[in-house]
Amino acid sequence: MSAGRPRPVNGDLRLDMDFLKHSRYIPMNRRRRIYEGKAKILYEGPEPGTLIQHFKDDATAFNAKKHEIVDGKGVLNNRISEYIFTHLNNMGIPTHFIRRLNMREQLIREVEIIPLEVVVRNVAAGSLSTRLGIEEGTQLPRSIIEFYYKNDKLGDPIVSEEHITAFGWATPQEIDDVMALAIRVNDFLAGLFLGVGIRLVDFKMECGRLWEGDMMRIVVADEISPDSCRLWDIATNDKLDKDRFRRDMGGMLEAYQEVARRLGILNDNDRTSSTGPTLVK
Amino acid sequence: MSAGRPRPVNGDLRLDMDFLKHSRYIPMNRRRRIYEGKAKILYEGPEPGTLIQHFKDDATAFNAKKHEIVDGKGVLNNRISEYIFTHLNNMGIPTHFIRRLNMREQLIREVEIIPLEVVVRNVAAGSLSTRLGIEEGTQLPRSIIEFYYKNDKLGDPIVSEEHITAFGWATPQEIDDVMALAIRVNDFLAGLFLGVGIRLVDFKMECGRLWEGDMMRIVVADEISPDSCRLWDIATNDKLDKDRFRRDMGGMLEAYQEVARRLGILNDNDRTSSTGPTLVK
Repeated sequence: MSAGRPRPVNGDLRLDMDFLKHSRYIPMNRRRRIYEGKAKILYEGPEPGTLIQHFKDDATAFNAKKHEIVDGKGVLNNRISEYIFTHLNNMGIPTHFIRRLNMREQLIREVEIIPLEVVVRNVAAGSLSTRLGIEEGTQLPRSIIEFYYKNDKLGDPIVSEEHITAFGWATPQEIDDVMALAIRVNDFLAGLFLGVGIRLVDFKMECGRLWEGDMMRIVVADEISPDSCRLWDIATNDKLDKDRFRRDMGGMLEAYQEVARRLGILNDNDRTSSTGPTLVK
Repeated sequence: MSAGRPRPVNGDLRLDMDFLKHSRYIPMNRRRRIYEGKAKILYEGPEPGTLIQHFKDDATAFNAKKHEIVDGKGVLNNRISEYIFTHLNNMGIPTHFIRRLNMREQLIREVEIIPLEVVVRNVAAGSLSTRLGIEEGTQLPRSIIEFYYKNDKLGDPIVSEEHITAFGWATPQEIDDVMALAIRVNDFLAGLFLGVGIRLVDFKMECGRLWEGDMMRIVVADEISPDSCRLWDIATNDKLDKDRFRRDMGGMLEAYQEVARRLGILNDNDRTSSTGPTLVK
């Protein structure tokens, strides 16, 4: 989308023109809904083996006990996640991402999601600080990978490789692949955010099995955005992530816009208002 | 102690005669107390590199939020743990145990305790059932080893190999050694209890580093008793372990006596009364 085009309004579902150029258009109301999560909806994609990932404005925390609509969050996360996944793909770190379709949607490959939240931590915060009694902000002796079993009813409990392999959620080889991906993604993200004055405290990612004929490989799936990262401004320690929502700090959308702006996704003149339109380049 | 000797009363601290024969006697009140835990006290031993492990009658649960004195529990655990550790030693599974000294005490090697509770589970129960939503009593697809960080203030949180190695609680090689020991102990205990009509649902063990000159090896430490195992009668599913105390079921001491009796440690005529004296063979 060029800067000369009329600005779409937050929440507007008009299609991005790129989508019309490259994909078969299926009207929203005719698409088959495959799955609806807390912050995203998956629809059947235009071709077999593809899905459309739609970013909602719903902000949830504490297993959806806390829930609000934050106008424009979905648009920002779609754009930030596109930016990160595009770079991961380019670096040879395989992901499910194909391309962004419009303001709120991206085309992805259909994968078999491994039911684990893979958390990589560089600095103590959140549940690690609580669980192990380590003050928030403490640099960890090295990056730590944690696994949480994706199950809302159980509150996504932390699990170890023992549970994962015993219950068949992933094989030891798959865990190795997931951990290797997690380390590569962490290395890239830590560098990327450092470059824009942000400390990557931790992040969550998900992985899926991508089948290509008889071959299967593990790829990064879901999204990577301020919803799934802890991002602290290096100069001020300001939180630029979902903790602003979890901890009732306010300014969540402005923080996400700041992240997008630093990554070069938003123009400077788009961050003056949090209720007005958001330009997606 | 022979059957013809006068029966010591529960809680009596008179020394077993074997102790006088084999060890330098240090009166209780002169011994240096090294460490006092919830259920045991460690005293300086008669020789360098040894300690005396004293079993108290204190029953605690939920990180000591629940606490009672159960007359005779310490005597039973001392005796059951002696029985198990003696067999482990004989099978070449190294432990800290040297020999029982008297009703409540055993001589052990001083080790550097690894700050982990190593839990081996064969059947779903307790926190695993709660955390992962698996009904108690469900046979697990295979034995599962869990690690909990020994820290009362934090409520012994579950941790993974990632936390253990990152915070230096144990090295990857040590974790491998601990897991190999845990599997061997589980195999032995499962067979032993099966042989006496008891299902080994799960158990907790601790390990320590035993230094012999420049050489270090990992050995089984602490105790193994109905305080640290889940033991269900195979015929009736009756609980013969500390869950009787945790869940206010009553009959804790009788259950421990039943375990000791089945293992051939108690004579049949010793289990008629729970308040009277307990004969230790």
